[in-house]
Formats: sequence, C-alpha cells, structure tokens
Amino acid sequence: MKQTNLRAAHAWSPDGWRSLVLDCGADGRLAAPADTDSDPATAHWVLPGMANLHSHAFQRAMAGLAERRSGAADSFWSWRETMYAFAERITPDDLQAIAAQLYVEMLRAGYTHVCEFHYLHHAPDGRPYADPAAMSRAIIAAAREAGIGLTLLPVLYMRGGFDGRALSSRQTRFGHDVDAFLRLLDDLRREEDASLRVGMAFHSLRAVLPEAMAATLAALPDDTPRHVHIAEQTAEVDDCMAVRGARPVRWLLDHANVDAHWTLVHATHLDDAEVQGIARSGATVAICPTTEANLGDGLFPLRDYLDAGGAWGVGSDSHISVSPVEELRWLEYGQRLRTRSRNVAADASTPSVGETLLRAVASSAADATGVPIGSLECGRRADWIVLDENAPELAARGQGDVLDSWIFSGNRPLVREVVAAGRRVVENGHHIDEDRIASRYRACVQRLAGAMRDDANGRSGV
Amino acid sequence: MKQTNLRAAHAWSPDGWRSLVLDCGADGRLAAPADTDSDPATAHWVLPGMANLHSHAFQRAMAGLAERRSGAADSFWSWRETMYAFAERITPDDLQAIAAQLYVEMLRAGYTHVCEFHYLHHAPDGRPYADPAAMSRAIIAAAREAGIGLTLLPVLYMRGGFDGRALSSRQTRFGHDVDAFLRLLDDLRREEDASLRVGMAFHSLRAVLPEAMAATLAALPDDTPRHVHIAEQTAEVDDCMAVRGARPVRWLLDHANVDAHWTLVHATHLDDAEVQGIARSGATVAICPTTEANLGDGLFPLRDYLDAGGAWGVGSDSHISVSPVEELRWLEYGQRLRTRSRNVAADASTPSVGETLLRAVASSAADATGVPIGSLECGRRADWIVLDENAPELAARGQGDVLDSWIFSGNRPLVREVVAAGRRVVENGHHIDEDRIASRYRACVQRLAGAMRDDANGRSGV
Repeated sequence: MKQTNLRAAHAWSPDGWRSLVLDCGADGRLAAPADTDSDPATAHWVLPGMANLHSHAFQRAMAGLAERRSGAADSFWSWRETMYAFAERITPDDLQAIAAQLYVEMLRAGYTHVCEFHYLHHAPDGRPYADPAAMSRAIIAAAREAGIGLTLLPVLYMRGGFDGRALSSRQTRFGHDVDAFLRLLDDLRREEDASLRVGMAFHSLRAVLPEAMAATLAALPDDTPRHVHIAEQTAEVDDCMAVRGARPVRWLLDHANVDAHWTLVHATHLDDAEVQGIARSGATVAICPTTEANLGDGLFPLRDYLDAGGAWGVGSDSHISVSPVEELRWLEYGQRLRTRSRNVAADASTPSVGETLLRAVASSAADATGVPIGSLECGRRADWIVLDENAPELAARGQGDVLDSWIFSGNRPLVREVVAAGRRVVENGHHIDEDRIASRYRACVQRLAGAMRDDANGRSGV
Repeated sequence: MKQTNLRAAHAWSPDGWRSLVLDCGADGRLAAPADTDSDPATAHWVLPGMANLHSHAFQRAMAGLAERRSGAADSFWSWRETMYAFAERITPDDLQAIAAQLYVEMLRAGYTHVCEFHYLHHAPDGRPYADPAAMSRAIIAAAREAGIGLTLLPVLYMRGGFDGRALSSRQTRFGHDVDAFLRLLDDLRREEDASLRVGMAFHSLRAVLPEAMAATLAALPDDTPRHVHIAEQTAEVDDCMAVRGARPVRWLLDHANVDAHWTLVHATHLDDAEVQGIARSGATVAICPTTEANLGDGLFPLRDYLDAGGAWGVGSDSHISVSPVEELRWLEYGQRLRTRSRNVAADASTPSVGETLLRAVASSAADATGVPIGSLECGRRADWIVLDENAPELAARGQGDVLDSWIFSGNRPLVREVVAAGRRVVENGHHIDEDRIASRYRACVQRLAGAMRDDANGRSGV
C-alpha cells in the first residue's frame, strides 16, 4: 500500500483543532510523524472519517420506490411489504453490486466506516447457499472494492413476532438457529483485518426469544460489537408491554448486561427512566434521522439524552439519503420543530451546534464499530476527510464556525478527499472507481426492476 | 439569443407526461414546434423549471453563522439579531455578488425563477442612496448575470411592531413611506422584460399599519403580485390578537381582497377557518420547510390544506439550503413525523408523493410569480430542467416513479441541464459562469467577515 501523508493546517478531533502531520503506517493506522525529507501536501480542514452506524445495503436499490400511497393509511408496516418484495429477488452478485455503489456514495459523503446490519442470509427459497456465508462475503467484497471500513453485523432473526410465531414465507431468507448463527460468526471472523470487524446483531426483541438471546450472548467473545433494533415503532412498544410486561428498552436493560459494546438502533420511543438507563449503561444509540422521518417513526428525545450524558451516532439505515450532513442537520431540526426553539443540541460548554454534533458522533465511533476510529491520534486507523476549502459555502469560515457551515448550509457533501485505513479513495470529490461500480449497479437494478415487473404481470394474470 | 431546442422523450407537466419538442422563440417563450430540418438533441426526463417563491438573497452569505447557542433560549428572535448585524454591512456591490452566487446555486438545483422579498433598500445609516433603487438594481443585475427569472418584490416596511413603534436603528435601512415606496415600484417597472417582473410585498402585518396597507393596495395595478410574511411565529399571532383582535391570517382575509395575486409566506400557525379561508381565496402559501425548521417555527398543516384545495409552493428563504428537493422532501417528512404515518401528501387520485408535490408547486408558479411558468406549453416561458438520466439514483426508474426517486433519494440535485427564458445556463450540472461568480462571492464574504471581526473587536474594546 502506498504511504499516505498529509499536513493538516486545521485537524479536528473531539478535543479540538490542531495543526498536525498525518502519517499513515503500513498497517493502515496513524503513526507518530517521523522525521522526513518528504513534504506532504497541505490541506486546510481535516476531520476524522465519520462512522455510519446502521445500514441495510440492499435497500439502497429501492430508494424512492415506496413513496407512493398504497392504501388508506400507509405506515412503516406497509413500507415493509414493499421492501420484502424487493428483497426476495436479490442474489449475492446483486448484493455486491448494490452495496459497492452504496459504499462509494458513503465515502463521497464523508463516511469511512459502516456497520452493516445484515439479515439477507439465505437463498430466496429460504435454504442456505452452498457457502452459508455467501451473502456476507458479498458485502465484504463490496466494502473491499469501495475501500470503506466495515463492521459486519450478521443478524440473528428467528421469529415473526413477540408471540413467538414462525417466520413468514417472506422472512425465511433471514432465519438461523443459534448454533448455525454462531458457526457463521466463527467462519466470518477468519476474514478480519484492519478494514473488517465482525460483530453481531439481534434483529429486534420480537425476532429473538429471551433464551436464544441469552445463549448467543453467553457464547460471544466479550468485546464483540452487538447491535439491536429497538423501540422504533409504538406498535412494537405496545406488543413488548403485552408479552414481556415491560417496554423494550426497559426489558433489555433488565435482561442483558448492556454496556459500551452495545448499540441500540433507533430507540425512538423512550420514557425518562429508559433515557437515563441507556446513558448510564455506556451503550450507543444509533439515530437514523432521515429513515426515521421517511418511515414516520418519530423523534428521538435528544436534549434529555444529552443531559443524561448518553452516547450516540447516526446511521443512514434504508439509504433514502446517504449523507452525514443530512442526518445531523435534520436531527437538530427535528428537535427545533418539536421545541420551537433553536440550537437545541448545543449548550454553554460547546455553543456551536455543528461541533456538538460532530463531537458526539466521533466520540461514539470506536465503541459502536469495535474499530479504533473517531480521532486523528497515533494508533487510530488512518481515516480522514478533507473538506473543500474553496467551496463558496465555506468561504471566510474559521475554526469557530466551519463545522456549523458544513452541517447547516448547502446541498453538496463539500468533501474533497477521503482516506480510509490509509487508502485515498476519494480525490476531488470523486471515488477512484465510481464509474465502473455505478455502471455495474445500473445493470443490476435494471435486471431487478425487470424481474419485479414480470412478477407483477404474472401475478395480475392469475 | 441562440435558439434553444430540445426533443424531450418524457416531458412532465401538471397534467402528465408527454413526448414533445421544446422550441424556444426569440421572445424566450415556448413556440409551437415548427417544421424544421434540424434534429434537436434528445433528453430523457424533462420538467418545467421550478419557482422559488421566497428569497432574502443577502442572507445566503450568513448561512451557517447562526447555528450556535447565544443564550439560554435561542429562538427566531435571537437569530434575527445576528441577521441584522450582518445586514448592516452590505453595499450594493456586495448584494450583487452574494445574490449572483445564490442564483447560480438555485439554477443548478433546478429553480429557474425566484421571488426576491427585498427590504434592504437604503444605505447603512438609513438614508436613501443617490439612486433610491440602487439595491434593487443590484438584485436585477445579479439575476441577469446568473440568467434566472426574477419577480422582484420591493418590501414596504414602516413600523417595528404591532404597537406602531418606529423602526429600530437596525431597521432604518428597510423603511419607506407609502409615496416613496410607490415611486420605487414605478421606477423599477420600467426595467421589466421576459425575465423580470416587479411585484411588491408587505413585510408583515406588524410592519405596516392598516391605513398604509390600504393606501398601497389602492394604488397598485390589479395584477401586481403581492407577498406578505404571515403567521410564522406564535408570538406574532399573539401580538396580532392583542392589538388587532384577530389572528393574522383571519385579519388579512377580513381586511384585504385576498385573491390569486397574493402569496402568504409561511402561514405556519393557522386555525381550521384560516386553512379554509386561504384555500378559498385562491392565494398561494409559500412554505419554506428548511428555514422554518432551522428557525424552529413549526410545521404547516399540509394535509388539511390539501383537502381544502389550497395552492402552495416552496421558497428557500434564508438559504441555509438551496434545493427544491430538500424543501419538498422535508415538507413531506415533517408531516410524517407529525402524524406517524407515511405518504401524507398523496391521495388515491395521485398515489405518488413526488408527483403530488411537483404538481402543486408547478400549478401555483404562474400566480405566485406573475410570470407564465410552471408548464411546458406553447406560450409559457421557456424554462425547463433536464434530470441526469445516468444518475444511479434514477437507474431503472420509469414515468411512475422517477419523480419519487428524484425527490426522495440521494443527496445531489440530479439536474444536468437548465434552460431559463430560452437560455441554457446550466450544462452538465455546471453553471456557465459559476467560477467567476463564485470567485467574486468569496472575496466579498472575506471582506464582510473581516469588517464584522473588526467591528466586534472594536466593540469589545469599548
């Protein structure tokens, strides 16, 4: 790998701005800058790469296809039917083509690492592929092609609801028993390197019975990143209350040793005790503002959670948007609309909203991903992004306001260069392999759309 | 002017998709396609240019500078202080430099016409410039440079509050008496052409006493576009109730002949009777979702207003965002968050949310701007945009879903070409003069930022 150096005039980390030389070692990590005759290029505004804490890569190809009324009351649940119809068709090659395109878009937007919450495990008929890890390997291959860091989170998905019913025919691609699931994790861990970490996820409380969750947790290495969808929908909260006698987050806090290795995805519907409980546990909440708005989930209680000292980051989830700027901007805007006031996330200690938000997502990145990212320090992985200092949006901005202008103005990523694990993958705003990857993606989506049309025509002929 | 022709494989208008040849006459309007040997270029997805119904151009230069906590409870009103401090500094040359950059950004995003709600009339000390229309002419010059259509709305601003108090020292640049204001309008009307229409605006009910509003309306030509800020903030509703005994929209409907020549900007806080009243009047509501979120104003009651048959469009207002996509996307998302459901704007007659939204903004464009735009018909101004058919976001999309994918996926404008009044001003996503205009803008903002810093240092030294 070519050594990548950069002199950063203004490098930002959660503890502030510094001028420094970024020196990447052969292991893809930041080294202490060595004495050197070489004179690296200089960049003005350099930030740690951003972590995308929640992704279902295959959904990228259906972005925009569920924005039409299908009945009297569209909801998360009617959206899920559209998504299932789409998921039925996807092969390992399709998944690689879609995920690679998505990861290129993530890198261009400033994400250098993604947590892939992966449940599309088996063939469309529900049987495992000859290689049971075929779909997981498609995601790993896509991440390697694009050059993004990956925490792969194979998902344990066993049941169709809190009542313990079996998976529906549209869900059989997702299912494992605990033993097969643990074998999958063991198998995948052999592929780990500087850019790949293998964690795991429980799809949700409704998809995993308590005994299966306990057995899985008992078998995991202690430091395994573990993610779970939780409290996204009020119907889910109601069902959990009815069957398990507690709200979902309350139940999880009471039945698992929730700590900094846990990431709770969404956690939209919380009571005060749950807000305090998550914050005390050290877990990270993965807030997905664009998807949560698209699905009409609701607004996370951010100010209360910040006051409790809770850790959080963002995820692009269904990928109707792929931009940390849109996630952070609309996370804050949702709070403003809710409270009819401004600058909700900031406080006296950090008056800049942009800096407050970036500090939070950078600080949680290492715990939530299980990878040393989030800061431009020696020993961390060499992930950074360079903002476009010539962008009119950033004209005359200084250390005190450049982050606010990045997050709260304009409609382009303003990311000029991206380095992930020491590899420069975005230059002048373009990914080094974007044309080839986009071309393969377009062909894949054409094929899937054609198959869905044929399927719809066949069905309507019955 | 070079004649601009285009063969549109799929041209969209509020009444549907057609295949047609767009043929621009020397007057900048669409002509009936003539028999011709020439074979125009073909484009796949062609839409009418979008109208931006609300703009304060100078605020573009401060986008991102007010996203920091200044006190215990930041609000619209503390934001306004920051904005005033910035406005104090701006000369006619500054205004032209800023507005031209803004208008280039609008064109690249798909807006081909802007309604400029212009109140920065006089020199910083409050005295008229030697040419009292100097600031208005700076805006006209900027629009001509950029090639965007302009409805210039000089603003009548006379009072500092509902109680009739005089303008504050920071507001003296904004003020006119009725006679001077009418002279300004007469003077500016002499500049009208295919790309320029002169309308007018009342800043708000609090800024104009009832007698002054009546006298102004009596003197206007009947077809003058007339805009007003109204019911943006709950404090404004409360003050209006206290002083005039009615909510602002109720008061306006009862005291002016509100019809299709009126545009009510924001109209966020409405009761049911006001929703019905605006809809019946034929007026357009200019909703500004990104600014209304940034300022914590609240959410417009869209579904009720659609059910009442009301007309509406969007505006980028303070320009923290300059994108019809972000306005429309988050207008719908705000409704989803409010109702915890999906696809709120759509109904059985038009299931696609994207098409529903675009139909509304296209249908209101001519009334709100006073210019024949909003549809690709013979006699309308030749304003169109071509989407980037090769964008991965639009791969495999057809007539039934391309508008949804445009509005609800991705983070780039996806606009490849823009024609305004028959002039091709954006090609391959780039404005034909963007480098020169951006360079002048950067120098202007550097100068303004330096002056504000000096001013702040001088003040802190007192």
